[in-house]
Amino acid sequence: MSEKNRQWIFLKRPHGLVTEDIFERREEPVGEPGEGEILVKVEFASLDPANRAWMEPVPTYKPPVMPGDVMHSFAIGRVVRSRADGYEAGDIVEGMLGWQDYAVLPASTVRKRNPRHSLEHLLGVLGITGLTAYYGLLEVGRIVAGETVVISAAAGAVGTIAGQIAKLKGCRVIGIAGGARKCAWLTEELGFDVAVDYKSPGFKSELAKAVGSGVHVYFDNVGGEIFEAVIPHLNTYGRIVACGTLTNYNDAEPQPGPRGLQVACVVKRLRMEGFIVLDFAATWDKAEADLASWIEAGLLKPPVDVREGFETLPGNLVGLFNGTNKGKLMVRINSSSGPAQQG
Amino acid sequence: MSEKNRQWIFLKRPHGLVTEDIFERREEPVGEPGEGEILVKVEFASLDPANRAWMEPVPTYKPPVMPGDVMHSFAIGRVVRSRADGYEAGDIVEGMLGWQDYAVLPASTVRKRNPRHSLEHLLGVLGITGLTAYYGLLEVGRIVAGETVVISAAAGAVGTIAGQIAKLKGCRVIGIAGGARKCAWLTEELGFDVAVDYKSPGFKSELAKAVGSGVHVYFDNVGGEIFEAVIPHLNTYGRIVACGTLTNYNDAEPQPGPRGLQVACVVKRLRMEGFIVLDFAATWDKAEADLASWIEAGLLKPPVDVREGFETLPGNLVGLFNGTNKGKLMVRINSSSGPAQQG
Repeated sequence: MSEKNRQWIFLKRPHGLVTEDIFERREEPVGEPGEGEILVKVEFASLDPANRAWMEPVPTYKPPVMPGDVMHSFAIGRVVRSRADGYEAGDIVEGMLGWQDYAVLPASTVRKRNPRHSLEHLLGVLGITGLTAYYGLLEVGRIVAGETVVISAAAGAVGTIAGQIAKLKGCRVIGIAGGARKCAWLTEELGFDVAVDYKSPGFKSELAKAVGSGVHVYFDNVGGEIFEAVIPHLNTYGRIVACGTLTNYNDAEPQPGPRGLQVACVVKRLRMEGFIVLDFAATWDKAEADLASWIEAGLLKPPVDVREGFETLPGNLVGLFNGTNKGKLMVRINSSSGPAQQG
Repeated sequence: MSEKNRQWIFLKRPHGLVTEDIFERREEPVGEPGEGEILVKVEFASLDPANRAWMEPVPTYKPPVMPGDVMHSFAIGRVVRSRADGYEAGDIVEGMLGWQDYAVLPASTVRKRNPRHSLEHLLGVLGITGLTAYYGLLEVGRIVAGETVVISAAAGAVGTIAGQIAKLKGCRVIGIAGGARKCAWLTEELGFDVAVDYKSPGFKSELAKAVGSGVHVYFDNVGGEIFEAVIPHLNTYGRIVACGTLTNYNDAEPQPGPRGLQVACVVKRLRMEGFIVLDFAATWDKAEADLASWIEAGLLKPPVDVREGFETLPGNLVGLFNGTNKGKLMVRINSSSGPAQQG
């Protein structure tokens, strides 16, 4: 194949915030799949807070990205050529495809997806993002109808889905997001009961007013001061779903945990639990079917924020940490030849 | 009754550390029980880290102690006079009897105890202390034979029992305590596998060496920097039993939580859970029987640190936070007329 493969190379670990200069653009010949491998044309790359965590030299749930690597990324694309049983050209596959036009990788490391849905949905609400919201609330938080649920980074990829799942399960849902525009969007478009702006000078008192008689489940995507502000409102036997720590990912040094957490944990018998969606892989099909059925029934609107073009990848990752996105942020690297069905 | 009732009155909330001058000694006539009440002669008062938490104006699992109150305390004594069905003179009862010679209180607020055991054991290993260790490890931490368990404040009342329960359940047990003398006592007398001195300049590296391949359960009695030091050693799916936060109780302001907890919680899927032993009251009889059987079998040695005399109560509470005790700290206020059997 004479076509070029554009790649973004991870040059060096950031110290603190991600900046565009830690990436370098390169062009390589498109690779050829070996035995058991597939060649995939990448269509959408998912930009996620976890991308920052992968840049630290310590392993997370996967090995870290190393200087010189093509930047790691969950992504979705179509098989161009296959030398693996069970895969053929045109198949939609999702996996760690990276920031590039073409990935060559063992078929065993990707997941074949259902072509009935759009690629945007497969990568977002029906992928890691939606599954994270689903398992975080239902398996870790164990929400019950009538409970009050607070969600931070509520306008983000996971937060928008989590809030709507909590609503359709009969909970009262309070979103925390940055800025009046995002807050209005959460209540007017996505059905959150209340949205509180953490950038407002009156944030703490607005949160206190919003939570009313207390919080049963706090779905934490951010850690830090926002987490700290929620702690006094947690009810006895409250649950903290430790989904992410957006405010910590960019720190060069580990930050102190929220004030008052330990005393509250003992006195209120709180349970704080972390999870990784990969741990629930055995039941992903059921979760995906649930999520798809809620979308079809009009109960779940999956907001997708698609940015265009390979060249925009580094800038959009920087923007993710500045909160520029509403809903699931992804970059379209290449367009599919065949039209994808919506659903 | 013409006898006097000595009392220690809680005068004012401490700002930071407990000091003796927040208490005032007083003598009052001994009270008379009303209908449904009992008059109890207090024999032993339990000194517990939680005493400090009760002094803050926010309710914990019980209402706070208010300036002017007789200082609250778990204690054990014998009924002198009863106007309540089911209670008679000589019965051993445990409850919130307070720092005084005689308590008058509704019989419904105390618990009648089995006279087969000594009062020291009933108040310690067979009371709140032992039950806290028991439920913390077995119900919250869910220890499994072969796992590595780390216990902070290991030479304290709960820690000494928790370490021995973890041992008899087949775990490898590492205690964290202050000073070489306490550490030697833990390994030589109580069977801990290793004890690490948090006052040692090499604490962190000694801890790293002691934990070997990682920690399955951390039984946290202290919070703060010791908790922080354990976090990097927790295994994936590690559990943190949030039993107490000794280092936080004396703080005037809430302290920051341990660094790195939130990131570790997500990446390692940690579960941190608080509990209060009162929540398990339905199965206390079974737990007490287990604990008593382990003592009889020689598998559990309950160390008791008895200080003598009503006058020493304030000073010994101050000492508790300076780590002067080994094992369960209690003050003998009055001696029983009849000899208690050991067991």
